[in-house]
Amino acid sequence: MTYECDVPDDVDRHGRDLHGLDSLNVTACRTRDGIKWGVVPPDVIPSWVADMDFPIADVIREAIARRAATDLGYPTWLEQPGCGPLADAFAERMESRYGWRPDPAHVRTYTDLNQALQVLLHLTTRPGDPIALHMPAYNSFLETLRDMGRRVLPIPIGPDGRFEVPDEPAPVLLLINPQNPSGRVFTQPELAALAEYAERHDALVISDEIHADLVYSPARHIPFATILPERTVTLTSASKAFNMGGVHCAIAHIGAEAVRTALDGRPPHIYGAPGALDVEATVAAWRHGDRWLEEVLRILDRNRQLIAERLPSRVGYRMPEGTYLAWLDLSAYGSPVATDAAGFLEREARVKVGPGPLYGGGDAFVRLNFGTSEAILEEILARISSALA
Amino acid sequence: MTYECDVPDDVDRHGRDLHGLDSLNVTACRTRDGIKWGVVPPDVIPSWVADMDFPIADVIREAIARRAATDLGYPTWLEQPGCGPLADAFAERMESRYGWRPDPAHVRTYTDLNQALQVLLHLTTRPGDPIALHMPAYNSFLETLRDMGRRVLPIPIGPDGRFEVPDEPAPVLLLINPQNPSGRVFTQPELAALAEYAERHDALVISDEIHADLVYSPARHIPFATILPERTVTLTSASKAFNMGGVHCAIAHIGAEAVRTALDGRPPHIYGAPGALDVEATVAAWRHGDRWLEEVLRILDRNRQLIAERLPSRVGYRMPEGTYLAWLDLSAYGSPVATDAAGFLEREARVKVGPGPLYGGGDAFVRLNFGTSEAILEEILARISSALA
Repeated sequence: MTYECDVPDDVDRHGRDLHGLDSLNVTACRTRDGIKWGVVPPDVIPSWVADMDFPIADVIREAIARRAATDLGYPTWLEQPGCGPLADAFAERMESRYGWRPDPAHVRTYTDLNQALQVLLHLTTRPGDPIALHMPAYNSFLETLRDMGRRVLPIPIGPDGRFEVPDEPAPVLLLINPQNPSGRVFTQPELAALAEYAERHDALVISDEIHADLVYSPARHIPFATILPERTVTLTSASKAFNMGGVHCAIAHIGAEAVRTALDGRPPHIYGAPGALDVEATVAAWRHGDRWLEEVLRILDRNRQLIAERLPSRVGYRMPEGTYLAWLDLSAYGSPVATDAAGFLEREARVKVGPGPLYGGGDAFVRLNFGTSEAILEEILARISSALA
Repeated sequence: MTYECDVPDDVDRHGRDLHGLDSLNVTACRTRDGIKWGVVPPDVIPSWVADMDFPIADVIREAIARRAATDLGYPTWLEQPGCGPLADAFAERMESRYGWRPDPAHVRTYTDLNQALQVLLHLTTRPGDPIALHMPAYNSFLETLRDMGRRVLPIPIGPDGRFEVPDEPAPVLLLINPQNPSGRVFTQPELAALAEYAERHDALVISDEIHADLVYSPARHIPFATILPERTVTLTSASKAFNMGGVHCAIAHIGAEAVRTALDGRPPHIYGAPGALDVEATVAAWRHGDRWLEEVLRILDRNRQLIAERLPSRVGYRMPEGTYLAWLDLSAYGSPVATDAAGFLEREARVKVGPGPLYGGGDAFVRLNFGTSEAILEEILARISSALA
């Protein structure tokens, strides 16, 4: 595909910060009314929930305004299961960025990935079934497995980022790649080993690739559907890379025919559908948001290195290859830090991070969100370093 | 409640058309890209799908723009089942307009009414079950009953607008009030008779009240939940009265405890949730949209009378007490009009209307959408009259 050219030239070819993304400060962010900044006391810096601090791309804002200004009635693609332009924009993006050609006819839409996962697990597994999953793992997925009575078959990720494929079978391998919270971007040999596992045990692979656009060179994202197309359901959304968690629009590309058949047997509207504003925002992000995204990636790449430079060397930190999440190990500090690292940091550093146990990790671990400006991240790291000194 | 005062004063106290809603013409509407105008040939005026031609209220557009400009991340009400301010705005509106005090804790949200209905029927009935329903009826609900293998137990609405309560039991009375397509707004005695039916047969009442805000004096809307609170699920959305079918945000107020229990037994995110833009648009409509709505109601009230004045007297037409839908009976014309009235009107009058059979009515019936300006409706009625002459 070629990108259309009606995009404001607001990041130049040298990646200079023409959006002012890297100039954000705490005072400006405190005016935000979303959950990230909205629920913390005024002296705490939030670094927990997976929202970045950057304002969304102008092209997205403009697409939303244009839809609101013209015709907010039933869209022409009302009866199309892939919401028309949404499935097309997804397929074009997968091909141009990752060399994968998804079939737009195999796209189904949901309001978010958590919904899509619950629908898929409901249709393909039973309570008590094991679900193979790298650990630690995205907290909402762990909650879903618990709420639905599915058992985690853990694939532990070591401090070096490596893992062993399990022996025990599971009907579903729930792959999160890039991985949340470790930031791992799985390599071709790693994915091949997981594919071999899925084939050996006849497992469905549900592959959450929502962080695919947030990968740092030389790592590169490989869609699992390019490896095992007919065994894979790919889940994604523009909400993570383009920082719009409030926009409810997610894609499930269902390569597995049996899953499509099971879905087609359900009442056709029982899972709802994204609204026109949500679809427009997503299409705008995928078709016109890449200059903004490049700038964000440059900031995040700098940030992941800043963490390594600024934090004390006793903090365990393996620099992520993707995502804006850092998984920190504070076990070298002993009590009271290691017994409740997140509580300690909120109390003593006035920084709110994600507590390790939420992701199935230990009490000494925390997840830190580095999707913010240099000034704010410097302040976060200075506070943490000072509390640990 | 009291309405907040930060609303532009764009309709004056005498209801003058300061929005320019009644000045719309066909040329301007043809630039719309939604399904209503987007799929008809250039010489056909669309009067079929239930979108009005009026631009949405400025207060809604501003609320959408404000959300897109400030924080489009996860909202503070992320984990609340009623989407926080949405359930509150709904409850306040029901109380101030209809004297009904719903419990915000009994609110669940869906992307649209069709989804909500499919979820409810899935949880409370089985294939083959009869569903009591006034006929003719909203085409999407008829499709849902067909898709889900539920049987219609018809409650025919006569040419005089009256109906007889059936003898046969049904586990669900699916009430559409105000009724689509007849425009009936059921009276207290009618609703009392339906309540007696529901009690006698221990039926759940699913009450679609999406047109409640579109009722013409002296008729008035009575929420069914005020009559049988613990037997009623009320469905509504701002998308109809405020003309934003592309916004996906619907309410189910679940007065029946057994239904709440059944829903609480499902995976918590399996039915998804509306996005922040959809919620903001709905809250703005319900809290700040009433001046715009008053103006629309004045236009629609004039329009329903215009139809009676302009159409030939052989066209059967009972003036609706609510909705912007007219149910026209062309059976007096014989073949070829009466054998396919919608086809005849599209061919000979170049007006696209809803064909009677789509709503379970006869071939001589059509549903005409009068949610448009005086000039456009005059043109529609002149074309129809001329084709029938």
